[in-house]
Amino acid sequence: MITTTSPRDGVVVETSISPTSPEGVERVVASAADAFTELSGWSRDRRATLLELMAEHVERHRDELVEIADRETALGQARLGGELSRSMFQLRLFATAVRDGCYLEAAIDHAGDTPLGPGPDIRRMLVPLGPVAVFGSSNFPFAFSVLGGDTASAIAAGCPVILKAHGSHPLTSELSAAALREAVAEAGAPSGTVGVVYGQAAGVGVVRHPLVTAVSLTGSLGAARVIQAAIDEREEPIPFFGELSSLNPLLVTPAGARQRGDEIVDGLSASVLGSAGQLCTKPGIAFVPRGTDGDDIVAGLVARFEAAPSATLLNTRIRTSFDEIEARLLAAGADKVAEGARADGGSFSVAPTLLEVGAEAFTGALAEECFGPLLVAVRYDDVDQALAAIDKVPGSLTATVQGVADEEGLPELFHRLEPRAGRLLFNQYPTGVRVSWAQHHGGPWPATNTQHTSVGVTAIRRWLRPVAWQNAPQAVLPVELRDGEPSIPIRIDGGLVLPVGR
Amino acid sequence: MITTTSPRDGVVVETSISPTSPEGVERVVASAADAFTELSGWSRDRRATLLELMAEHVERHRDELVEIADRETALGQARLGGELSRSMFQLRLFATAVRDGCYLEAAIDHAGDTPLGPGPDIRRMLVPLGPVAVFGSSNFPFAFSVLGGDTASAIAAGCPVILKAHGSHPLTSELSAAALREAVAEAGAPSGTVGVVYGQAAGVGVVRHPLVTAVSLTGSLGAARVIQAAIDEREEPIPFFGELSSLNPLLVTPAGARQRGDEIVDGLSASVLGSAGQLCTKPGIAFVPRGTDGDDIVAGLVARFEAAPSATLLNTRIRTSFDEIEARLLAAGADKVAEGARADGGSFSVAPTLLEVGAEAFTGALAEECFGPLLVAVRYDDVDQALAAIDKVPGSLTATVQGVADEEGLPELFHRLEPRAGRLLFNQYPTGVRVSWAQHHGGPWPATNTQHTSVGVTAIRRWLRPVAWQNAPQAVLPVELRDGEPSIPIRIDGGLVLPVGR
Repeated sequence: MITTTSPRDGVVVETSISPTSPEGVERVVASAADAFTELSGWSRDRRATLLELMAEHVERHRDELVEIADRETALGQARLGGELSRSMFQLRLFATAVRDGCYLEAAIDHAGDTPLGPGPDIRRMLVPLGPVAVFGSSNFPFAFSVLGGDTASAIAAGCPVILKAHGSHPLTSELSAAALREAVAEAGAPSGTVGVVYGQAAGVGVVRHPLVTAVSLTGSLGAARVIQAAIDEREEPIPFFGELSSLNPLLVTPAGARQRGDEIVDGLSASVLGSAGQLCTKPGIAFVPRGTDGDDIVAGLVARFEAAPSATLLNTRIRTSFDEIEARLLAAGADKVAEGARADGGSFSVAPTLLEVGAEAFTGALAEECFGPLLVAVRYDDVDQALAAIDKVPGSLTATVQGVADEEGLPELFHRLEPRAGRLLFNQYPTGVRVSWAQHHGGPWPATNTQHTSVGVTAIRRWLRPVAWQNAPQAVLPVELRDGEPSIPIRIDGGLVLPVGR
Repeated sequence: MITTTSPRDGVVVETSISPTSPEGVERVVASAADAFTELSGWSRDRRATLLELMAEHVERHRDELVEIADRETALGQARLGGELSRSMFQLRLFATAVRDGCYLEAAIDHAGDTPLGPGPDIRRMLVPLGPVAVFGSSNFPFAFSVLGGDTASAIAAGCPVILKAHGSHPLTSELSAAALREAVAEAGAPSGTVGVVYGQAAGVGVVRHPLVTAVSLTGSLGAARVIQAAIDEREEPIPFFGELSSLNPLLVTPAGARQRGDEIVDGLSASVLGSAGQLCTKPGIAFVPRGTDGDDIVAGLVARFEAAPSATLLNTRIRTSFDEIEARLLAAGADKVAEGARADGGSFSVAPTLLEVGAEAFTGALAEECFGPLLVAVRYDDVDQALAAIDKVPGSLTATVQGVADEEGLPELFHRLEPRAGRLLFNQYPTGVRVSWAQHHGGPWPATNTQHTSVGVTAIRRWLRPVAWQNAPQAVLPVELRDGEPSIPIRIDGGLVLPVGR
C-alpha cells in the first residue's frame, strides 16, 4: 500500500491506496481513450460548464482538502487555502477561455484567385491531441497537481487527463480526484475524463502507453530524465512539457540599493522564505552591489534570516538535498552569513540559510538550484560584472530587477536579461504567479524544455494540434469553421474578424 | 570540393564550393549571433521590408536560378518556375504577417483587483529565439531550401538563419544565398542574417553549436535521427521541427467510384506522377472499392501509368531506395499491375509503377513511403475495412476522401480520419500545397515531430518563445506592449482588441 508521511513529525501512515498495477494502468488509459471519443463530440460550452462544475465541487470539499493537504505537506492552512482558491480561479478562467474560442487559432482562406493561380478553400483550427498524462508536483498539492492548471488546461482543450499523483500527497490527490469526479458525473461527462495512477512504475507505464498523446511534468530534472527515457521507448514520440529547474536571478541595481534598501530586504526575504522556500519561482540568487548600500541590504537579510523560524520541507528527498546542496555551495566558495532557527523537532525541518560570495569568484558551481529557504547573495562591483555572473546561471523562469523607476539604462538591462528568463520583473518578486491571459511561466532550458507555458490561458496550446480542412463540405467542418457570422475570433482571408457584439 | 550531379545524365561535376570546415561553421554561427543582436533592435516594419527585398532580388535572378536548379534536379523549368514564384509569394506573405503583428500573441493584464487579491501588471508577447539552423530539402530546391519557407518564417520572426544546403543542389543553394544576401545588403541588415554551410559534418556542427537555438528539417527519418543525435550531444536541448515521412492515404468512397471515376483517375494519376512523384504530399496509397466501379478506376490508372514517361529522380539515394522499396512492397504481397516507360538512358530514371493489393491482406509492411512515381492501390470490400487498413498507415501530412458532396456519412468519415493526418481533403488532391493563413502542413508522427506547421503563416510560431514583463516601466517594454492605441491585435484584460481602422 502507498504510505503518506507527515513532514511535521515524520510519521509514516499506510493508506488504503495501492500502487496502480500494469492492468490498472491499462484500464485507466483505455477509459481515458473512450472518454476522448465521447468528449470530442461535445460543444465548447459544455466543456466550459464541466470546468465550472469542477471548481464548484472543489469548493465543497475545501475544508477537508486544506486539512489533509496541510497534514501531508506542512505548507500551512493559509497558504493552502489561497492555493485552492487559485486552482478554482484557474478552472473558471479556462472555462472563460474555452467560451471565447480564440485559442482555436481559427482561420479560413476561401477558394479564389491568388498570385499563384486558383487557391482551394482551406480552413484551419486547433483540435485536442487525445488522452494526456500529467505528473503532479510535490510543492503545489492543488495548483500544480490533480486539480491544478495542467488538468484545467487539458480538459479545456478537450483532452482527458491521467494524473500521476505525487508521492508527497497521495491522500490529497485521492480526495482531489474524487471532487473532480463528482463534477464529471454531474456534467454527464465520461468517467475516464479524469483518471489517477499512483506510484512511479505506473507513471512510466502511462507515458509508454500508445494511446497517451502528451505528457506534462512540474518537477525535477531527474524526473524529466525518467519520463524522457520512457518516451524514447515508445514507437511514436509524444510531446513532453516539463517545468524543471529555475534559480530566478534577482539583481539589485546600485540605485535600487541606495534608495529602496529596506523595501528590498522586506520583499526579498519574504519571497525566499515563504512556503519554506519551495517555489519554482523563488529567487535563489540575488546580486547585490558592494559598498555600504549593499552592505545594509545584506545586513538586513541576515537579520531576517536569523530571526526566521525553522522551515519544514515536503519530504525526505528535498530535506536531504537541501543539506547536500548547501554543502556543495560552501565547497564552491560561498560563505554562510546567516542561519535561522534549526530543526524544531520535526524530521524534515531545516534552518533558513543565507550564503554570500563575491561576483569575481562566481562559477557555475554556485548556480545550483536549492529547493528550500536558501539564498545566495552575490556581491558585485559593477553591473557588467553582475551580468557576466548571471550569464553563468542556467535559464530561469524569471529574472528580476530591483531598481528605481527613472533609473538610466533600464531598457538595456532588461534587454540583456531577456535571453535568460521567460518572465522579467521590475521592483516586484517572482513568487506568487498571477494566473491570467498574459502570464508566461516557462523559460530557457532547464527552466522548461519547450516554448510553452504551464500557467495562464496560453497553457492550453500544449494540448492541441492544428488540422486544416481543404474543400470540405459544411457538414464535415467543425461548427467554428462553418460559413455564417463568426462565433469566435477568426482570420478570414487574411483579416482578423471578431464575433458580432465583441 | 563539393560536387554537383545532373540527374538526367548522371554526370558529376566538381564545383568551386568547399565543404564548410569546423572553423567555417564557427564563423557562420558567430556572424549569425551578431546579426541576432543587431536585428533584435529592428522594427517589424524594417524586417518586413527585408523580406520584400528578398523576393525582389530572387526575381532578378529568376532565369539563372531556374536553369541551374533544373540542371541539378531535373524537375523541369515549368515546375521550378512555379516553385520560385511560390517562394517569392511566401516571402511577401510573411512580410504581411509581420506588419499585421497578430503572430506576436500580445496580451496585457493591467494591475488591479482580482478574485485572488491585487494582481500585478503583466504583459506578454512572443520574441525570437536566436540564430536557427535550417536543413533544406532535396525535392524543393527553392520553396523548402535556402530561399524557402523556413528561411522566410525565421527571418519574419527575427531569427538569423543558417542554411545547410542540400547535397542535391549546391549551386542552386549558392546562387539562392547570393540573391538573399543582395537583399540583406540593400536593407542594411547584418551580413550574418543569412548564412550557408555545405556538407553533412558542417550541418551537424551547426546543430551542436551552443549559440544555435532551434533546427528545422524537411527530410527523411534517417536525417532526423542524425539531427536528434546531435541535439542530444548538446548541453542545452533545442527545439527540432522535422517534416519527415508521409504516405497520404486517399480513400475513394463507393459513391465516388460510381459517380466520379474518370475524374479520380485524372486527378490521382496527375498527383502521383507530377514532380516525378517526389512530393511529401504525394498520395502514396489509394483505397479503391472492389467491384466494377473500382475496377474501372484501377483500369484507368493502369492506362495512365503505362502511358507515363520514365521519371528522373533527384539523386542516387532516392533512385536506389525506389527499387528497394518496390521490392519490399512486392515481397509484402502487392502485385505490380502497371509500369510506365523504363529508364530513358538517364542514370536516375525509373518507371512509374502501380501496385495493387487486397485490404484484407494489408499490413504495416505495405505502408512504406516510396519517394517517386509509385502508388499502391488497396482494394476494399467496405469502408470499415478500408478504415481498418488506414489505421495501419503511419500518421500523414494529409488524408483525402474522394466521394460525392451529398454522400451520407461524410462527417463520420472525416472524424474517423482526423487523428491520422494534419490536413483533410475532399475531392481535391494533396499535392500543390496552398501557401496561406489557414494552411497546415504537419501531422501526427512520423509526418512531423511537433504540433507545428512548416507551411503557411503560423509556421512563424516555431521560431518564437513567449516572454512576460511584470510591472515594467514603459521604456523597458517592446513598443507593441506599451500603453496607448494598440498597433496590433492585442488581448487587453481578457478582451481581444483590434487596432483602430482594422
